[in-house]
Formats: sequence, C-alpha cells, structure tokens
Amino acid sequence: MSGKLIGVGTGPGDPELLTLKAVRAIERADVVAFFAKRGNPSNARAIVVEHFRTGQVEEALDYPVTTEIHRHDNGYRDQIQRFYTEAAERLAAHLDAGRTVAVLSEGDPLFYGSYMHLHVRLAPRYDTQVIPGITAMSGCWSSAGLPLVQGDDILTILPGTLDQAELARRLSDTQGAVIMKLGRNLPKVRAALADAGRLDGAVYVERGTMDNGASIALTEKPNDDAPYFSLVLVPGWSARL
Amino acid sequence: MSGKLIGVGTGPGDPELLTLKAVRAIERADVVAFFAKRGNPSNARAIVVEHFRTGQVEEALDYPVTTEIHRHDNGYRDQIQRFYTEAAERLAAHLDAGRTVAVLSEGDPLFYGSYMHLHVRLAPRYDTQVIPGITAMSGCWSSAGLPLVQGDDILTILPGTLDQAELARRLSDTQGAVIMKLGRNLPKVRAALADAGRLDGAVYVERGTMDNGASIALTEKPNDDAPYFSLVLVPGWSARL
Repeated sequence: MSGKLIGVGTGPGDPELLTLKAVRAIERADVVAFFAKRGNPSNARAIVVEHFRTGQVEEALDYPVTTEIHRHDNGYRDQIQRFYTEAAERLAAHLDAGRTVAVLSEGDPLFYGSYMHLHVRLAPRYDTQVIPGITAMSGCWSSAGLPLVQGDDILTILPGTLDQAELARRLSDTQGAVIMKLGRNLPKVRAALADAGRLDGAVYVERGTMDNGASIALTEKPNDDAPYFSLVLVPGWSARL
Repeated sequence: MSGKLIGVGTGPGDPELLTLKAVRAIERADVVAFFAKRGNPSNARAIVVEHFRTGQVEEALDYPVTTEIHRHDNGYRDQIQRFYTEAAERLAAHLDAGRTVAVLSEGDPLFYGSYMHLHVRLAPRYDTQVIPGITAMSGCWSSAGLPLVQGDDILTILPGTLDQAELARRLSDTQGAVIMKLGRNLPKVRAALADAGRLDGAVYVERGTMDNGASIALTEKPNDDAPYFSLVLVPGWSARL
C-alpha cells in the first residue's frame, strides 16, 4: 500500500504561527522534505524543526544553482523542471514504500509555493492532503495592525515585476492591493502608486513576522532596494461601516 | 495600567487549523469576546471552545437583528455603527481594568473580518496585537487540492455582488481569481466566467474545511443557490515551471 503525501504550510516565519494540524502532521510523518538553496539552511525547516522526532528521515531538496542563467532562458526552465521531476521521484520512492511524506512549504502550499511543483507531479498518483498555512501577506498586515479589506472590497495581489504603467492601471482599479516581489522594483512600485493616486496610505512591511520586523508608511521609506520578501500593502477599507 | 487587546484569527472552521499562537492567546486571556447573530451560537467560539479555561469571562457581541432593513439603508448603517461602538466600549471597560481581551475572528482578523470594526475603535487607545488566521479561501483551495497561483501570477479577490459585466471584465484581466459572497449570485458569477472564457477550470467549493465539505468543477454544479460561505476558485497557474 502506498504512503501519503502531505503538503504542510509552515506559515510566514514565526514558529508560533504553525497550525495544530501542521504540528501533528510533522510529528507523525515518516519523511520530512523541504526545499533549500544549495549550501543554505532551509527556512521552512528552521520554522518547524522543534517538532521533528528522532528517527525521521529528512529529504533536503536543494535547488540547482542557476544564478548565472536568466530565469526566462530555456536552459533555466529545463534545469528547474528537471529538478522538480527528480525531487518528485525521490519522494515517490518513499510513497511507494508506504511512507507518509510531509513536504514543508513556507506560507501556504498552494499560494505561490514551491510545493505546487511536487503536487502536480504526485497528487494524481498518490493519496494527498494539503494543510493550509498563514500567508506572508497575512503575517505582514497583522504585524502592521492594518485593516486591509472589508465588505465588498476587491483585493488585487500583484507582483512588483509588472511594468509601471500596468501596475498603475491595476492599482487605480482596485480597493485593496498587496504588492509582492519588491526587491529592486521598489522605486517603480512607488512611482506606480503615485501615478494611481494610491501612495498615501500605502504601507511598507519588512520581515513581517520576524522579531526584527517593521512596518512604516511607504512615503517614509528611503527609496532604495527592499528585501525580496518585503511587501507593500494598500488598504482598501475607507468607510467604517 | 491598561490591558491588552488581541485580535485572534480562528481559521476557517476546522479546530485543528488554529495556530499555536492563537491557542496560547485564548488560554491566557482574561476575557474572550466573539460576534454572533442574536439567538445563534457563535461560529468562532465553537471552533476554539476546547481551549477556554475555567474562570474566563465570555463577552458575546450579538449583532442587532436587521433583516428587515436593507444594508444600504441609512437606518441599517446607523444601527450597525452604534452596535460596533457599544461593543468596543464594553471591551474598553475590561481593558481599562487591566484585563487582556481576546477577540475571536473567523478566518483572518484583518481580511474581511468583523474584528476590524473593533480594531479601528480600540487600537488607537490600547496596546493591541493581531494574530493572523488561515483564511476561508486558503482552507478551500487546500481542501480542493487546487494549486492557485504561482510565480508572477496576479490574483484578484472579487465579491459575487459585482454586476455581470464588471465581474467578466475583471475575470478577463487576471490570472487567478477567488469569488466570494456567492449565495444568490452564483448564476450571475457562472455567466460572467463564461463571458470571460474562464468557466472551464473554475472550481466550486462548499464548506471547504468542514467534515462535509466538497469541491467540484463549477460546470458540474447545479445552477441553484449556493451557501453564503461557498467560494469559486479560478486557478491562474497554467505553465508548470
């Protein structure tokens, strides 16, 4: 009899933001798998390691080093696809042996998570369960104490990689917004918010659920680079019904 | 010294989807407050009641009965505003007495949650913490096992109350979508998805994290009413990078 695949959301970073269901799944799993950049510790593993038990098998799925290949390059696509396929086959061997395999996923597994690449390869063949996790954006607006959307508000989640005109168009056409993937895109995001008349009210959040996290009005943030996992939040809630 | 206000996300319904942080906050609170419709048990209370301890004060915040007043009516607005203000003052009395007050909020407190109405009234005056919760939409796509968005996908969260043309316009202009507030809007939502060419792939989820939950292709769902807390999910992830 085959084992079970469980995608486990670990939440945004604070080990206390793990769900009871995730804790039990990790404690009971025969195998715990997690992604990491080669040569670096896994963030997801660090969040949950206190719940590991002796004798559990750990499967570190190390991303291939691809910094010298552009992400839209076919060589990159081929390499990363091959990596996900090989990672899925490593887990399939455990599943074929009847083992329960918990795959850790920062945030929520099916919301911009790497786990999805294993899910689409394995869920058609094996018993599968997905345990949701607190998303990074929830962690950020909670730590900022920022009511985001209410009632019939529309919320739009945007990557900072869009061009300025496209960002501005979409920011003009929504109540609430979350802008992810800031990094070097922050000056462009700021300009797009200004174009859309949404700069006032926008909040910049860095390391939202870490001890050293901080949130400030975007207008007070120096216009330099932002860490990749920072966010800009645009609250949609204007009326206090 | 004043007490502390804590907005506690209880998640979408499954008591196992509570975070460790939420459990500890509930266990330690002097007062636990929750919203309910008058004459009905509180859903949020039912999710977490096993963590209550003897001697805790419970504050049931019963919504006024307003079914005979239309929600865009000024009378309704006045009545509900007065209700939130009175509820905030009840909790303020506990906070002034130095008590820690945990306010339960289904899903995530600052994401379409009733807690927000208390937060805006009390957070400027008292020490406040918000503990995020698993949203209903995360619970739904997880129970459906549906990878929703990946990479640079845009995700748009829409209320089913928008008119058909507006829904179709927005569904044509996004990768992923979540449509909430279905109820009697389901036939309109279905028509808008068809107009936008997004009906195939749309998934209907009912009671996503309950024992009797179910998800089916929207094309297989009879075109009748849907419960208010059902959702339609439109996955944005097309390429398997």
